[in-house]
Amino acid sequence: MLGGLPNPLFGRDIVSIRDFRRSELETIFQATTKISNMPYKERRQLAEGRLLGLIFYEPSSRTKLSFESAMYSIGGSSIGIADPSTSSVEKGENFTDTVIVVSGYVDVLVIRHSREGAARYAASISEKPVINAGSGAEEHPTQAMLDLYTIHREKGRIDGLTVGIMGDLRYSRTVYSLLYALSKYDTKIRLISPPELRLRSDALLDIRKDSWTQHTSIDEVISELDVLYVTRIQKERFPDPTEYQRVKGSYYVDTSILERGKSELIVLHPLPRVDEIKPEVDRLPQAKYFLQAKLGKDLRAALLALILNPDFE
Amino acid sequence: MLGGLPNPLFGRDIVSIRDFRRSELETIFQATTKISNMPYKERRQLAEGRLLGLIFYEPSSRTKLSFESAMYSIGGSSIGIADPSTSSVEKGENFTDTVIVVSGYVDVLVIRHSREGAARYAASISEKPVINAGSGAEEHPTQAMLDLYTIHREKGRIDGLTVGIMGDLRYSRTVYSLLYALSKYDTKIRLISPPELRLRSDALLDIRKDSWTQHTSIDEVISELDVLYVTRIQKERFPDPTEYQRVKGSYYVDTSILERGKSELIVLHPLPRVDEIKPEVDRLPQAKYFLQAKLGKDLRAALLALILNPDFE
Amino acid sequence: MLGGLPNPLFGRDIVSIRDFRRSELETIFQATTKISNMPYKERRQLAEGRLLGLIFYEPSSRTKLSFESAMYSIGGSSIGIADPSTSSVEKGENFTDTVIVVSGYVDVLVIRHSREGAARYAASISEKPVINAGSGAEEHPTQAMLDLYTIHREKGRIDGLTVGIMGDLRYSRTVYSLLYALSKYDTKIRLISPPELRLRSDALLDIRKDSWTQHTSIDEVISELDVLYVTRIQKERFPDPTEYQRVKGSYYVDTSILERGKSELIVLHPLPRVDEIKPEVDRLPQAKYFLQAKLGKDLRAALLALILNPDFE
Repeated sequence: MLGGLPNPLFGRDIVSIRDFRRSELETIFQATTKISNMPYKERRQLAEGRLLGLIFYEPSSRTKLSFESAMYSIGGSSIGIADPSTSSVEKGENFTDTVIVVSGYVDVLVIRHSREGAARYAASISEKPVINAGSGAEEHPTQAMLDLYTIHREKGRIDGLTVGIMGDLRYSRTVYSLLYALSKYDTKIRLISPPELRLRSDALLDIRKDSWTQHTSIDEVISELDVLYVTRIQKERFPDPTEYQRVKGSYYVDTSILERGKSELIVLHPLPRVDEIKPEVDRLPQAKYFLQAKLGKDLRAALLALILNPDFE
Repeated sequence: MLGGLPNPLFGRDIVSIRDFRRSELETIFQATTKISNMPYKERRQLAEGRLLGLIFYEPSSRTKLSFESAMYSIGGSSIGIADPSTSSVEKGENFTDTVIVVSGYVDVLVIRHSREGAARYAASISEKPVINAGSGAEEHPTQAMLDLYTIHREKGRIDGLTVGIMGDLRYSRTVYSLLYALSKYDTKIRLISPPELRLRSDALLDIRKDSWTQHTSIDEVISELDVLYVTRIQKERFPDPTEYQRVKGSYYVDTSILERGKSELIVLHPLPRVDEIKPEVDRLPQAKYFLQAKLGKDLRAALLALILNPDFE
Repeated sequence: MLGGLPNPLFGRDIVSIRDFRRSELETIFQATTKISNMPYKERRQLAEGRLLGLIFYEPSSRTKLSFESAMYSIGGSSIGIADPSTSSVEKGENFTDTVIVVSGYVDVLVIRHSREGAARYAASISEKPVINAGSGAEEHPTQAMLDLYTIHREKGRIDGLTVGIMGDLRYSRTVYSLLYALSKYDTKIRLISPPELRLRSDALLDIRKDSWTQHTSIDEVISELDVLYVTRIQKERFPDPTEYQRVKGSYYVDTSILERGKSELIVLHPLPRVDEIKPEVDRLPQAKYFLQAKLGKDLRAALLALILNPDFE
């Protein structure tokens, strides 16, 4: 603790990536690198005896496992409610009471909910810090922190990079959080999607006008990219199945596309994927999406350690 | 340990509140207060390395989380089966074997089952202590202990109090357990419900005749109450939906009702609630239901510590 | 560690019982006995801070609890995905990525999957050891190790015994694993089943021709058996319900059948049972199936300790 001040994340809610300054993101990145290199015994003292509560109203095995393994790696444990089957009405009626009651049992809450604003609301009534693990089509801030950290770790910097984001830009909450995060840096953004899955215009308001361009084909931009971030195109967004097949067949990454890119290009994906990155890519040096998933454990461990310990940083 | 005798809860099953003497309930209350004030490191030694097994044949996120957080807070951990979807027939066929097998893996079992008598039966075949977390419409003893402890903590005593119990008295298992618990004390009980949801007569047999009266409106008794215990009225109990709407609209608590009560009146509820306590009540000093839920963690931690440690009390 | 060599199970995948030599099985049995007698504090250091990941695509409460309690008993913890509802197509699409991602979070994986070969495939792509907890109708190697260990513990040896296996020999994966395990010893095997549920012929190829005989009635062999292994006959295997009733009524164990057997005969069953062992048998000295289930915790704890620690044996 420098001069007795707690770290800037201590006791904080993580609702939106927009709530964090660049310097705070960098505190998280440094803490992640530190925790990755920490001797195991020391690491397991950071949350010894502390309890994480997971309230998941939407299914998400991997995000849940990522938080659980992160919490365990710093000496704590997790308990949770996972109830994707409950109807919206029931959710609405009980959500407030559930958050208040569970926040009385644990030290920090992680919440995923299908309604926009749910995490913000939960943070306002919870007596313990709340981490948003996805609310509506809105935000998934720890995924964005992880995306940025992976870029930072693999490229050595974020400023000055050209980042392509391809796929479903309209309904993917990881994309919104990533864009907000990138807007804190000096990056060029290339948005690649079919017209019907373009970014919602409200998200563009937060990004400097001269920093982004929109495209319908990856061919237009592949040669200038340093980072290519791919997201899944979900079948259920398309009323017409033939339209889905057409789009799916145009927005994917394979070896031949990567051959037209820079040799140091890195490919990221929030996972799970369906067809949009071909398995042949998995063994290429560009493929960083499995590393990205793996880094999620340490990034979330660092975040939890910062939130729970005033003097960790 | 006084004179080498184990505490009176050591190794005990917790099937019905009727199995416990007043002095034993008071041992639990004292242990709860002690555990609440215990330094964290000392507290986490009470069940270090011990394992709790949860067998839940009915859904109950909150009771489950309460036991899990309680067990973790004294240094142990929990594993469990939650299978509300299994049909009754399957349950019948496997319940015996499941209890025997799981009791071989853990140090103490917590069981919730839709059939009356299921917990008593489980206790008879388990090689480890069994805690009933609700069986049929019958009993939920740890909830009753918690209700009593909350009253004791907030009012400083239980003897001499007038306790109103309002809502579905017929089908709510928490009500039966609470009545049995209160019958061990010198209290006046005011039962407030629509005629179709009156207490089953067999429950009344256990309560001293001169200690209770039945009412159809809270207006008749609100001015004399020290405690108002509210339960949920469940839609599915009413064949006629208009009848449900009428009942629902008559058995609830709001600010104007509380203004007619004593200023020190406390309002309890086992949660989850639907409409029977208006959100405006949450901020009033009378509202103790969230505190009650929170105390559930320490009460269950104390109970587990007593059951597992002969020399804790 | 003898001469610096790690134990023969260290870092190993447990996919098929066929991958293990007799001497390796005996290493596991010795480790199980050792771990059963180990002081609790010492035992809890074997996997301190280590994490087990459970990926269950088929429901199996008991196997899951057995692994969780085993891992906890040696000081570690477990996290998991249990998703029996996911359709086969979804599973196929995501299984690879799920295994890679989860193996990045944990120290060892336990996988149950409805498809044959799934565990072998998972082991080939996982960066951490994989334990097969059942794949297709194929194998369930830790159950077979447990079956053998129970026989070894109760009879003092495996060589020279006559083992009857009765029930559904065609679709029960525990039977295949047990047969492969027994084929490493000098045993006589008596297979008792209705003609339609006879062993698949490919399994017989692995067993020495002179070591087994097939029967349709237990009466033909009961007097010579040292061990009787009973499995469940599943209703869904029979297109005709009356045929199921007939078979069910002919392949069961009760007191009168056991009276015709050796007095030291032991009865095993992988559980859960339906009707094939009558409850009256539970109290007889021959009944070892609950002991068998209980030993599963220590056997799996020993296996995990061997896989995770080079110098444990």
